[in-house]
Amino acid sequence: MTPFLQFLLLLAIILFVAKLAGYLSTLIHQPSVLGELLVGLLLGPSLLDIVNLPFISNEFLGESIYELAEVGVLLLMFVAGLELHFSELARNAKVSALAGLMGVIVPVSLGWGLGLLFGLTPVAALFLGMTLGATSVSISAQTLIELKMLRSRVGMGLLGAAVFDDILVILLLSLFLALEMGGASVWAVIWVFARMVIFLAASVSFGLWVVPRVVRLIAPLPISQGVLTLALIIMFLYSIAAEFVGGMAAITGAFLAGLMFSRSPEKERLQRGMSALAYGLFVPIFFVNIGLSVNVRTLGVETLWLLVGITAVAIVGKLGGAGIGARLAGFTWRESIQLGAGMVSRGEVGLILASVGVQQGMVNAAELSAIVGMVLISTIVTPPMLRALFQRPKPKEV
Amino acid sequence: MTPFLQFLLLLAIILFVAKLAGYLSTLIHQPSVLGELLVGLLLGPSLLDIVNLPFISNEFLGESIYELAEVGVLLLMFVAGLELHFSELARNAKVSALAGLMGVIVPVSLGWGLGLLFGLTPVAALFLGMTLGATSVSISAQTLIELKMLRSRVGMGLLGAAVFDDILVILLLSLFLALEMGGASVWAVIWVFARMVIFLAASVSFGLWVVPRVVRLIAPLPISQGVLTLALIIMFLYSIAAEFVGGMAAITGAFLAGLMFSRSPEKERLQRGMSALAYGLFVPIFFVNIGLSVNVRTLGVETLWLLVGITAVAIVGKLGGAGIGARLAGFTWRESIQLGAGMVSRGEVGLILASVGVQQGMVNAAELSAIVGMVLISTIVTPPMLRALFQRPKPKEV
Repeated sequence: MTPFLQFLLLLAIILFVAKLAGYLSTLIHQPSVLGELLVGLLLGPSLLDIVNLPFISNEFLGESIYELAEVGVLLLMFVAGLELHFSELARNAKVSALAGLMGVIVPVSLGWGLGLLFGLTPVAALFLGMTLGATSVSISAQTLIELKMLRSRVGMGLLGAAVFDDILVILLLSLFLALEMGGASVWAVIWVFARMVIFLAASVSFGLWVVPRVVRLIAPLPISQGVLTLALIIMFLYSIAAEFVGGMAAITGAFLAGLMFSRSPEKERLQRGMSALAYGLFVPIFFVNIGLSVNVRTLGVETLWLLVGITAVAIVGKLGGAGIGARLAGFTWRESIQLGAGMVSRGEVGLILASVGVQQGMVNAAELSAIVGMVLISTIVTPPMLRALFQRPKPKEV
Repeated sequence: MTPFLQFLLLLAIILFVAKLAGYLSTLIHQPSVLGELLVGLLLGPSLLDIVNLPFISNEFLGESIYELAEVGVLLLMFVAGLELHFSELARNAKVSALAGLMGVIVPVSLGWGLGLLFGLTPVAALFLGMTLGATSVSISAQTLIELKMLRSRVGMGLLGAAVFDDILVILLLSLFLALEMGGASVWAVIWVFARMVIFLAASVSFGLWVVPRVVRLIAPLPISQGVLTLALIIMFLYSIAAEFVGGMAAITGAFLAGLMFSRSPEKERLQRGMSALAYGLFVPIFFVNIGLSVNVRTLGVETLWLLVGITAVAIVGKLGGAGIGARLAGFTWRESIQLGAGMVSRGEVGLILASVGVQQGMVNAAELSAIVGMVLISTIVTPPMLRALFQRPKPKEV
């Protein structure tokens, strides 16, 4: 089989098992994203190791699947942004800021304490705490979309808090590295902050003033799928700019891009097209790929207690911290716990921090395994937890 | 910039220039596919060499773009199949068979003669002729979709003829290699033929009896984009089977898969979703990638005459041969020429044959350059040629 046919075969298998597992998941009243995550784990190196099957000789295969998966999470965040309105999100700025802030402070502090308890140096313990600070809200966004709760107060507070969370963790990391690397230059930290402000100001201004005009210009022209392609181009550019200019996560850029198109007159057609791209092909690959990239077997017994500790601190710290922040901002207890639960899932940013820590010699192999395990567990528990918390009477719609 | 951001940037550039060039193309009353092909040439190694820009360090980039492009041509052929009906295509079997047959015999014979004229051995000359036999109908299909002529008698005859063409060229190549490799085993040729029959019979039966039932089963289930994903899975499997089981081109499999879904009750929703995937993202990448993979600079002056000769023979032979076949089957002269023109564009199969010839030592570097140039020119002249031939009164609709 040629490398390209192997690629097609792998895509066919991934799409088939993802949709099947997602459907089985709904049969037991769980969000389909749970089944898609779990089936990825089965296909991954932990069990079936599908990327390295005997008939697979395509060395680019893992890389290609990874790239499609990453496009998938961008599409997912764009779709989440598209469902909201900028003004609605702005109205929830207070709860977002408080939940984001407390949702970083509490798990980082608890992680620090845990690190000291496990005998780490104070600096290494602080770094461990920081890896517990970063939320990845894509799984929660998908779950809330499935529960039709994304546009509730909780959903909007959650997405806003995730943006604040991203900003805070990156600032914290820069501050930490600046202090640690010796220089302790206050200018370096100011520069990190300035880059974020530049990116956010530029992307919001461009989105509010330029995007609607370009959409109106393009829409009537004889360009097949013109607006959809324009949205993809802008989503790609925002994602690049978020990371390259702002120093933030690419998914934050994709989310902002979606938000900017939510005011577009072509919104409905765009939603249909984006949904076809996202849920027809890319997003299932993203969910399955999370499992594909984890190898449960490398988790030795000696790291088990560390894993249990880190995971407990990660879940309790985030749920409690973000929950308290939301409560302080005036959410009901019920809404606060729902928002806190939505912040539990971790993702790329935590892993990126951990890999920076490995480079700096502050995170060892056992801790890295435990952090990867924590990211996986926190991601898998989030959908059923949200589902259970949203069971009873609906929260107030805004 | 991380490798993934480089990938996103390249996608953004390709999509932007493709849509812009496509639009400019329509301004001068040409199909947009012409502009997308030409702009690919400018971005490719002939001029800007975009994949190797200074800031690009992603070694997988070319491979990833290639894979997306190949998915693009599969989607394009699926969409073309979806627009037709199996029964309509069957009604045009006679014209398809005759145009396909004559469209192979004439250019192969002319190419043989040309090879002898240029001093090749009889065997090498025959092989050169064979590389001129293979049509790639995706560009013509796209042009006819834009001209709203795909469902005319000409469009359907063309797509059917392309399937016959694919069958004939593969059979001819197998026959040639079997004879040339010494064995001259009649069984090897029968086996090639049997594989095609097995693939065609199995895929049509599966498509007629199983696919509609599965679609009816899936459609009402709570699976987001369930039917669209199913169609993608079956398209991938048909493409794999066409090449791996049938020994034919993957695009023939994708076309058959689309044809099978054309009878589905969910056809309209599927068309919208597939169109978003195809024209929003993948197909523009395919068109641009054709240009990206060609380097005009490697065409030395010494091969120029060979290029001119091969290209002339390729265009005249295919247009004349397929045209005569269509006329013999009862098409008007006008329709026959239109069908012949639609068969002119060459593609992957010609290049695959040429690379087999290089392996066998029957095609040298100069001939290979000339064949690549011929594939490019025949592809670029097809859209404006079809556009001009379809200018005057519309042909009879079936």
